[in-house]
Amino acid sequence: MDKKQLIDDDLKYIWRPFTQMKSLEDASNRPIIIKRGKGIYLEDIDGNKYIDAVSSWWVNTLGHSNPRINKVIYKQAKKIEHVIFAGFTHEPVIKFSKKLVEMMNNNLKHVFFSDNGSTAVEVALKMAYQYQVLKGHSEKRKFIALKNSYHGDTLGAVSVGGIDMYHKVYKPLLFEIIQAESPYCYRCPVGCAKETCNIDCLSSVENILKEHSKNIAGIIIEPLVQAAGGMIMYKAEYITKLRKLCDKYNILLIDDEVAMGFYRTGKLFAYEHAGVVPDIVCAAKGITAGYMPLSVTITTDEIFNAFYDEDKDGYKTFYHGHSYTAYPLALAVALENLKILQEMNIEEYLKPKINKFSEQLEKFKKHKNVGDVRQTGMICAVELVKDKNTKEPFSYEDGIGKKIYLEGLKLGAILRPMWNCIYFITPYIITENEIEKLTGIAFQALNKVLPDKE
Amino acid sequence: MDKKQLIDDDLKYIWRPFTQMKSLEDASNRPIIIKRGKGIYLEDIDGNKYIDAVSSWWVNTLGHSNPRINKVIYKQAKKIEHVIFAGFTHEPVIKFSKKLVEMMNNNLKHVFFSDNGSTAVEVALKMAYQYQVLKGHSEKRKFIALKNSYHGDTLGAVSVGGIDMYHKVYKPLLFEIIQAESPYCYRCPVGCAKETCNIDCLSSVENILKEHSKNIAGIIIEPLVQAAGGMIMYKAEYITKLRKLCDKYNILLIDDEVAMGFYRTGKLFAYEHAGVVPDIVCAAKGITAGYMPLSVTITTDEIFNAFYDEDKDGYKTFYHGHSYTAYPLALAVALENLKILQEMNIEEYLKPKINKFSEQLEKFKKHKNVGDVRQTGMICAVELVKDKNTKEPFSYEDGIGKKIYLEGLKLGAILRPMWNCIYFITPYIITENEIEKLTGIAFQALNKVLPDKE
Repeated sequence: MDKKQLIDDDLKYIWRPFTQMKSLEDASNRPIIIKRGKGIYLEDIDGNKYIDAVSSWWVNTLGHSNPRINKVIYKQAKKIEHVIFAGFTHEPVIKFSKKLVEMMNNNLKHVFFSDNGSTAVEVALKMAYQYQVLKGHSEKRKFIALKNSYHGDTLGAVSVGGIDMYHKVYKPLLFEIIQAESPYCYRCPVGCAKETCNIDCLSSVENILKEHSKNIAGIIIEPLVQAAGGMIMYKAEYITKLRKLCDKYNILLIDDEVAMGFYRTGKLFAYEHAGVVPDIVCAAKGITAGYMPLSVTITTDEIFNAFYDEDKDGYKTFYHGHSYTAYPLALAVALENLKILQEMNIEEYLKPKINKFSEQLEKFKKHKNVGDVRQTGMICAVELVKDKNTKEPFSYEDGIGKKIYLEGLKLGAILRPMWNCIYFITPYIITENEIEKLTGIAFQALNKVLPDKE
Repeated sequence: MDKKQLIDDDLKYIWRPFTQMKSLEDASNRPIIIKRGKGIYLEDIDGNKYIDAVSSWWVNTLGHSNPRINKVIYKQAKKIEHVIFAGFTHEPVIKFSKKLVEMMNNNLKHVFFSDNGSTAVEVALKMAYQYQVLKGHSEKRKFIALKNSYHGDTLGAVSVGGIDMYHKVYKPLLFEIIQAESPYCYRCPVGCAKETCNIDCLSSVENILKEHSKNIAGIIIEPLVQAAGGMIMYKAEYITKLRKLCDKYNILLIDDEVAMGFYRTGKLFAYEHAGVVPDIVCAAKGITAGYMPLSVTITTDEIFNAFYDEDKDGYKTFYHGHSYTAYPLALAVALENLKILQEMNIEEYLKPKINKFSEQLEKFKKHKNVGDVRQTGMICAVELVKDKNTKEPFSYEDGIGKKIYLEGLKLGAILRPMWNCIYFITPYIITENEIEKLTGIAFQALNKVLPDKE
């Protein structure tokens, strides 16, 4: 099949995610047909290779088409691809769950499976609310969520989202939440500076709790990085202090690690940086090294036990499930992924790469349109501004992000700036040389689109 | 690893779907460890084989561990397992979408991908609501849904559900809907009899529309069979007439084919039996022949075009997506699945099997506790009652379903009666001999639990 025909058919038959379909009339917006992947590279139908600097939506960790994982999938498919997970089980899911709980080594002990980040969040919200009901607090029916947060696209997950573009239109279908300030250090909501930050922005949460805690089931956060909101990063201490507030006001801390989990921040889960343990953790994306949808919602004995009882009328049972809940194909991959990460001694393995990124980010700082450069483990972000002093952002019409994206493609990297933010979320196997190459491409693309004065 | 250790670990680390975890203290409820699957059979760790009479949650169509599909997965993994689906695309998704739209051959022309049945329904609800807003009808914000319906477990899908056990506790988190009667022929809500049915139960929908249509965005149905509600079956004519009502009152018809799609009813989609076309169709389960999560929400030019425009502020864009949206691994499988089904000439292939089931169901009819025997294509159901004349159902405490399940296991079949309903939803590749064997096992299990008078 030829390329033109494929593109025509794509546009004719497929409605693409997060996409204004009319924008595809512009040839520069046409989807690129990927025919092959290998390590950090994706190759298109014309033979062009690109560094996958976004890990294909932040999921890939061990490189594309990893030979070891490919073999595991085939081996598992030849045994059993899927079996109903009510009443039945299988070795991969048992071994994975045990290994994960042992690796966490804290009081998060019960793993509930679903299919993606959105469903992991839906499970968490339903679980938290039902827990409160079972504890006799049916008046605790609201959640706190943060501005600029993104937790997924199903309507429960949308309800706790804080990005107007994604959420506003669906308002009448959403449940009510209370929104707190975003810990957006570069644009501090309480007017502080990074250097002297004492996590004063958390007062927004505490003020809500002072007034409303008896009606609040829990708070949901993206730990350390509000990713879709524009790679907004904040200190671990925020989570440490938030944990104390949750205890003080008797609400649950729901930690959405969908993007951060499985070592993206340098540790298994981001909450570890804060030295505390949430009540419920959601994880997905990297769980299968980037191969296929799978997610977990992990919780404590305290929550699990509240549901554990004789149950005549069903209201103590947690009713949630999907056809492919804990399907063996994905669990075999997830188990192999944990083994590989352990064999790599992943925390140590990532340190020089994290340092390399840090070193390479320096060159961006002096650019006249770079307002902020930030990094959390294997996530780096460069926020562009019209004016460094006023922090005035570029407008949508400026189209800076798209221009940089197109330059990046020409230079051999998939950069997909969000808002005005260039970011790097690469597979973990990227080498130090490749980090130099990638950041060099991004810097070149930036200077092409926004030439520096000097 | 030994069996006892595996079971202990399963119970210790995993929170199972739809399961009161305390019930697993009872040894007869412990999960069975499946180590292998082949065709219609699942084999446990002790070497016991079971006919998978539930197609592992109604997903398997071509048998477990299908060699042809196994090879396709491995081949695709070696090319590219996943690539971000915004801005990028790949051959399997283009070819699948084109083939599917061509097979439907009607005005459903645009395929939106997500991960499972719940998300396919969430996409449909968001799409329908936003469509009404874009058409200037922001007052059309309610949906009609049917009693006994099940559309998934994310909170949007739960909102349109009609089974109290699954949905009641979450009420404060759900959006408001208007519930219409269930077309439950055996227990007709308007007091009619099957033989003289004139679809009078649809008056419940029309009455709602007469009063509220200007506030209603759409109605969502499970076509022909309300599956999780107890394999409740109704005539295709209901859908034919409903389509007319939707046109008359200007609301959208959302057809949740998650369980029925991909030939479960004998045709590609169940709506075909009614000779009409819905505005939005959701499909999942059998789309990958039972291998892995994938779903589609398919819609018309009319709806697609309402979103197609210059879009400065984003409110005309359909904002929905998941990390693994349209991942190549699943699409390669889905494409191969369509090819296999076509090569099999699947509609003709299923006819003798459907007839065989029909013939074999006869023996159940005379049993003193069989109230109703029903069939729609490859779905068969036997509803048990305490008393045939009064139709009095067994109570939860009678535990009839569980007893039959345990007898079935002993006899070599996975029957999982729902409520008081024994059902068969087998892989399509079941042979006529195996249909005899399976229905024989079910009949024997029934007679063991509820011995017939004669």
